[in-house]
Amino acid sequence: MKTGNVLKLVYLGINAYKEAVIYMRRNCHVCRSEGFEVPARVKIVHKNGTILATLNIIESELLTSHEASLSVYAWELLNASPGDDVQVFHPPHLNSLDYIRGKIYGRTLDKSQIKEIIQDVIAGSLSDIHLSAFLAATADGHFSKDEILYLTESMIETGNQLKWENDLIVDKHCIGGLPGNRTTPIVVAIVAAFGLIIPKTSSRAITSPAGTADTMEVLAPVDLNLNAMRKVVEKENGCIVWGGTVNLSPADDILIRIERALVLDSMGQLVASILSKKIAAGSTHAVIDIPVGPTVKIRTTSSANELKNYLETIGKIIGIEIQIVFTDGTQPVGRGIGPALEAKDVLSVLQRDPNAPQSLRERAVMLAGQVLEFSPQVHKGMGYALAESILNSGQAWEKFQAICHAQGGFFPPPTAKHVKTICSKKKGKVIATDNRYLSRIAKLAGAPTTKAAGIELLAPVGTEVNVGDPLFIIHSETKGELNYAINFLSTGREIFEFGKSP
Amino acid sequence: MKTGNVLKLVYLGINAYKEAVIYMRRNCHVCRSEGFEVPARVKIVHKNGTILATLNIIESELLTSHEASLSVYAWELLNASPGDDVQVFHPPHLNSLDYIRGKIYGRTLDKSQIKEIIQDVIAGSLSDIHLSAFLAATADGHFSKDEILYLTESMIETGNQLKWENDLIVDKHCIGGLPGNRTTPIVVAIVAAFGLIIPKTSSRAITSPAGTADTMEVLAPVDLNLNAMRKVVEKENGCIVWGGTVNLSPADDILIRIERALVLDSMGQLVASILSKKIAAGSTHAVIDIPVGPTVKIRTTSSANELKNYLETIGKIIGIEIQIVFTDGTQPVGRGIGPALEAKDVLSVLQRDPNAPQSLRERAVMLAGQVLEFSPQVHKGMGYALAESILNSGQAWEKFQAICHAQGGFFPPPTAKHVKTICSKKKGKVIATDNRYLSRIAKLAGAPTTKAAGIELLAPVGTEVNVGDPLFIIHSETKGELNYAINFLSTGREIFEFGKSP
Repeated sequence: MKTGNVLKLVYLGINAYKEAVIYMRRNCHVCRSEGFEVPARVKIVHKNGTILATLNIIESELLTSHEASLSVYAWELLNASPGDDVQVFHPPHLNSLDYIRGKIYGRTLDKSQIKEIIQDVIAGSLSDIHLSAFLAATADGHFSKDEILYLTESMIETGNQLKWENDLIVDKHCIGGLPGNRTTPIVVAIVAAFGLIIPKTSSRAITSPAGTADTMEVLAPVDLNLNAMRKVVEKENGCIVWGGTVNLSPADDILIRIERALVLDSMGQLVASILSKKIAAGSTHAVIDIPVGPTVKIRTTSSANELKNYLETIGKIIGIEIQIVFTDGTQPVGRGIGPALEAKDVLSVLQRDPNAPQSLRERAVMLAGQVLEFSPQVHKGMGYALAESILNSGQAWEKFQAICHAQGGFFPPPTAKHVKTICSKKKGKVIATDNRYLSRIAKLAGAPTTKAAGIELLAPVGTEVNVGDPLFIIHSETKGELNYAINFLSTGREIFEFGKSP
Repeated sequence: MKTGNVLKLVYLGINAYKEAVIYMRRNCHVCRSEGFEVPARVKIVHKNGTILATLNIIESELLTSHEASLSVYAWELLNASPGDDVQVFHPPHLNSLDYIRGKIYGRTLDKSQIKEIIQDVIAGSLSDIHLSAFLAATADGHFSKDEILYLTESMIETGNQLKWENDLIVDKHCIGGLPGNRTTPIVVAIVAAFGLIIPKTSSRAITSPAGTADTMEVLAPVDLNLNAMRKVVEKENGCIVWGGTVNLSPADDILIRIERALVLDSMGQLVASILSKKIAAGSTHAVIDIPVGPTVKIRTTSSANELKNYLETIGKIIGIEIQIVFTDGTQPVGRGIGPALEAKDVLSVLQRDPNAPQSLRERAVMLAGQVLEFSPQVHKGMGYALAESILNSGQAWEKFQAICHAQGGFFPPPTAKHVKTICSKKKGKVIATDNRYLSRIAKLAGAPTTKAAGIELLAPVGTEVNVGDPLFIIHSETKGELNYAINFLSTGREIFEFGKSP
């Protein structure tokens, strides 16, 4: 134990997301004796464990030369407390960095190499710079089908994995990007009402105004741990919980963040991400909804087909049957954009409200029908009608309420304090909407942080509008956020595209 | 002007190296209204300009919800002061990120695209994650000769560029990695004494125990700006200054840092880095020393030849004549490792001390001879003898002192307070040394921060040693650092490899 290397931890509360950072004075004895200079990587030894971190230098009186601080992620990785001692050293050699470099130079990686990379991702040993190089080097065309398989297997092996008694465990997944596309709660309710086991984990919004977990959270608790989730499924056949708490694919959660910064959707990463989470959830069969359109994740038929091929063939190898459904990704599904507004759409479909958005109802029934056809009791082609009858009979609505109660309670969705109806300045038929701008306005209005905030779309594609007709309503909790969203509209961006009137 | 977006700047002194970071409270009104979440990129508008930055969240009382702080680099980019107002927005779309993504997908970039990337690098608009993806996507084999040319040209066009009266401006460069290889001051002294113009800029240590600028700084000031540098060269024909102050290739300085983190030496990047700095210095002719060996940057003859080919052909296109010299990169050149110890070696060669390290003397004379042959007055093959005569006559030594005085003074190298001689536990002939371990010990002893610290190597390859014979001496300013270096030896690493004694 080299006592000369010891520094005392001080809490500064700096959150650098999933990057472990250590903050030290430049003139601290450890920096000097080890010869550290930013942006070095260093090894931190703490009584609870050892991690690697990026060094940032403090040039002010925030720390003394005998103190150090950590980023929030590093505190968590070490489970450290203020006042604890840490020792700081030069980092060890990382084999995984050699493999990443090998990939940059076009080499093919084997299973053990990919697994070591993924293990180091989870341990926080690789910095954002390393992860970015890995993703760039494994983007489309640089990662073989075998390598995608190894990546999927490595993600499965390094995360939690659920086991179920039943032989048939179904799932449903949508390749994101389409606002308001909240079919999941409806699909789960129909499928669970029929009697299939569907332990569904969903994500929160990353860049969108709402993820399925955000929407579901309006109606019931979603922060369930593995045990609690299991109890819900054992009781009600299904659940809709947040995947972040159950930690099914921790490596994926870290890599997705870098992909987002690069605005890079790597096919291999996407396939591994989806399949690893399905296998981790214990699923044997899954329907995957791939919306295709110019402003969603999958933009062309050829990339949709490539993705389908990877999902089906790798799915087969790792033991999950995949059914792909291509859907229209050109405009929002449902009427609401934002957690509570989407939750209201979901409820209206389940409650068989005649004013429920038909686009959401139809898509949910179609997807539920596909899932039902995994059952040996359901003949091919009969799923849609069966799903519709379960919805129409009220069984799905009852099942949904039961699932909510099992998850901890069923709450009515909140209503926003401030609304503003935006009317058309043009006359004509709506022929397209810009989904990215709609999402942006919903976020400016407060979604997903403010549950009630968002947009209510009144003029979907196909609507004939006159000057002064309502196009959408902005919902906000505060006057400031409402104005913020309205201001965005004054910048002259074209959200609706109109065709010539007859 | 949306006044709702204004935050007041507070100084926290956090140095994240060349990454612009903004620190804000999660519950600050700007974060909430814009819906920012770590690790977002944001646009910062300040009265002096606009930059992009990475968002870190402060979860403590370091800031109020109406305050923000910046990383040291961001303060510098904006030339901002505490108390200034900033506005924070979502970042604009970056075309350069599209080009980087294109490169990831294997597209070829044209000149304007590469230039836009480099401009965004310098503006700080691209994050470390983006830069890493760019480097991974442009590593060997992915960047064509044309693209390397465009990269070189873009780096030249975006940095400072020196102009000289003379038609022949010579330079000398070494592809690093070899400890103690401090030929530059000797070469410059010989060449300038002969009368050629050699405005030499050098780097400080990045990961090594000393860069040429660190060594030279022991003997004379090196932090000269462009004007001061020009005056020295006009007076004495040559200089040896730190390249960081004169800012000849700012993009390169930023990219090198990411390459270091990836331990990635991209051929294209290396070629552009070297040539852009030579052209920026106004050089017309340059000798480039490529040490080849198992523990230096260039490890094989084939990569040495590839580098030679790129440097020569791209050099020709951009108007600089390149002369490549391959040298032995298997063991340290000279005796000292560390700024002052290397400076003493340099002085002993210039002062014609009979005990001067012959390896350093011979390599410097050979390289100086190559440079001299750029002169139309020097016949091919006559450079070595001419360089040696200039050294032996004392002209080089006089010129060196004159250059030091012109740079601001000539100082004697300091001597360390503490030394420890390390003796051999084995008998035999030294057949190899591990240069990385030698560098490591020199750094632990305090180099390059402590000028006098480092290693004095007494048993170079070829030396016959008995048990108890001295191998090297560790020099340190503090007892603690000395012990730190000695402790490293106790870990049992083999620094010297011995052959069987006869």
